[in-house]
Amino acid sequence: MAEGRTPGAARGKITITEIAREAGVSVPTVSRVVNGRSDVSPATRARVEDLLREHGYRRRPTAPGDRAALLDLVFNDLDSPWAVEIIRGVEQVAHAAGMGTVVSAIHGRSGDARQWMRNLRARASGGVILVTSVLEPVLHEELRRLGVPLVVVDPAGSPALDAPTVGATNWAGGLAATEHLLGLGHRRIGFVAGPPRLLCSRARLDGHRAALEGAGIAVDESLVVQGDFYHASGFTGCTTLLDREDPPTALFAASDQMALGAIEALRRRGLRVPEDMSVVGFDDLPEVRWSSPPLTTVRQPLVEMGKTAVRTVLRLARDEELDSPRVELATELVVRSSTAPPAR
Amino acid sequence: MAEGRTPGAARGKITITEIAREAGVSVPTVSRVVNGRSDVSPATRARVEDLLREHGYRRRPTAPGDRAALLDLVFNDLDSPWAVEIIRGVEQVAHAAGMGTVVSAIHGRSGDARQWMRNLRARASGGVILVTSVLEPVLHEELRRLGVPLVVVDPAGSPALDAPTVGATNWAGGLAATEHLLGLGHRRIGFVAGPPRLLCSRARLDGHRAALEGAGIAVDESLVVQGDFYHASGFTGCTTLLDREDPPTALFAASDQMALGAIEALRRRGLRVPEDMSVVGFDDLPEVRWSSPPLTTVRQPLVEMGKTAVRTVLRLARDEELDSPRVELATELVVRSSTAPPAR
Repeated sequence: MAEGRTPGAARGKITITEIAREAGVSVPTVSRVVNGRSDVSPATRARVEDLLREHGYRRRPTAPGDRAALLDLVFNDLDSPWAVEIIRGVEQVAHAAGMGTVVSAIHGRSGDARQWMRNLRARASGGVILVTSVLEPVLHEELRRLGVPLVVVDPAGSPALDAPTVGATNWAGGLAATEHLLGLGHRRIGFVAGPPRLLCSRARLDGHRAALEGAGIAVDESLVVQGDFYHASGFTGCTTLLDREDPPTALFAASDQMALGAIEALRRRGLRVPEDMSVVGFDDLPEVRWSSPPLTTVRQPLVEMGKTAVRTVLRLARDEELDSPRVELATELVVRSSTAPPAR
Repeated sequence: MAEGRTPGAARGKITITEIAREAGVSVPTVSRVVNGRSDVSPATRARVEDLLREHGYRRRPTAPGDRAALLDLVFNDLDSPWAVEIIRGVEQVAHAAGMGTVVSAIHGRSGDARQWMRNLRARASGGVILVTSVLEPVLHEELRRLGVPLVVVDPAGSPALDAPTVGATNWAGGLAATEHLLGLGHRRIGFVAGPPRLLCSRARLDGHRAALEGAGIAVDESLVVQGDFYHASGFTGCTTLLDREDPPTALFAASDQMALGAIEALRRRGLRVPEDMSVVGFDDLPEVRWSSPPLTTVRQPLVEMGKTAVRTVLRLARDEELDSPRVELATELVVRSSTAPPAR
């Protein structure tokens, strides 16, 4: 972890004494701010932190072996189906770099987020990885003040954040899934979409449409039903399509959970997958290998996304330039048993 | 975290100087050991740690706000299906106590475990929760020397460890599952067992047998097939039972993954669950709500087990007496759609 532990050393020439003078506070006060103590007024803290950041001051360079470095990985909730995949990737690279991974959930609660921020200061975290945009803008600003390197892992395609972001190629994934169904001979393909406010939902749908257009098939918007990424919406979305006079022969659900919901809707009607309808998902959660039938889906490289996020944090900590503020890792079609040529 | 941060304060009267004298080393050397520095010979470290422990010395009492406390949660691998459930429970209680949760995986590799141990020393972790028996005995001994409170979360029923353990009532769970099938009218019930070396496997099977005996049904050992908790063994176990001349009408798989494997084996033969065979699992992993059909299973309270483990660590840190060195939290039968009365 030698590399990650001397962040910004090159420009960290200013001393605490100079900062104290400039801020008009005592040296112990600056020291308290630097060490994340809570007994400093918010106004003083903000003024000192601004000066620290302005002058490129970084916390004391730690001697090897003095204290192991930590990395903070923050989720909104830990019940997201992909949480453990991201933890795996992050832990692996952080561990190799000698860093401990502190996992937190803030449950969309402002109090939890502030508590986490207090703890973050106190443990002098070496970097923060947020999974999707889980913090209020005011806390983003506070992180920036602290000078802690920040990277966002974004499987959902959140609105743009002022931080480096690691995502996946959602459009290409949507394209690949529908091209797979077209290649099997399907011409009427239903689509259960994700929440329209998320960029990833729009990208997956656009990829689906692009594949149809590429095959010279007119896009039938009535075959696109709205979902929310969760199981129940896949169930009802599939039911809606089955209730049509001319149901599609294949269904592309923009998340694995919705695909599993669709499979259950088909089972309830006594229909078989893939014989009566092919189903493709999106995510490749670990459990869909064990669904019945095993699900054909588009793999989001969640473990790799976690790994890339750590590497990016380490680069930021070394003041290295990033190739790009937004990286999209490649999705990949995984063909299992839920897709086959149409019977009709 | 005030409570957890002054562990053993009452008996922590000895000073570093006295320890140094007794160990025949310098004060800075003892200080290096106390602070987890790596530049101390293993022999010296062991001698000093023994003395520290003997005299009940604990690391400097930290001032509130000085540094946030940490808790270490250690898995063998993070791809265990129940990892995220345990993380959720641990994080929740630790967060409420103002502690950060450091999640690590050691992959059964001695090098990784030693690296983790070095990091643990360096970050002065306030407690360790091991998920199953993942450490070599030598590292257990080292943890004991460090005086870090240790609790084992044990969903698998590992061989007894010299540490407080939080498990689940595997026997009662096995009993409940088979009683449920008996209540539906099943009399020939197949069982796919877990690895016999794990206590939980034996407990679940014994619970199953006890239910049969309680109903006055002779146990037919040929209906018990061996599995290993993983999906593939549920698939082959179910196939073996289906190949009999007199297949059972219901199947109890001792893990959810094996139950999903059994459902897939049935689907491949064109058999329906529960119409042609009822299937019960064990664990209640989040995803089995979304299996097709949704799985009837025995819930292991994994989130609660994580929570209890943290509370136990905090109690140990305060030198409180534990009610029992081994706690088993209650399992619960969750009836969904994979079980029904037998058709035959």
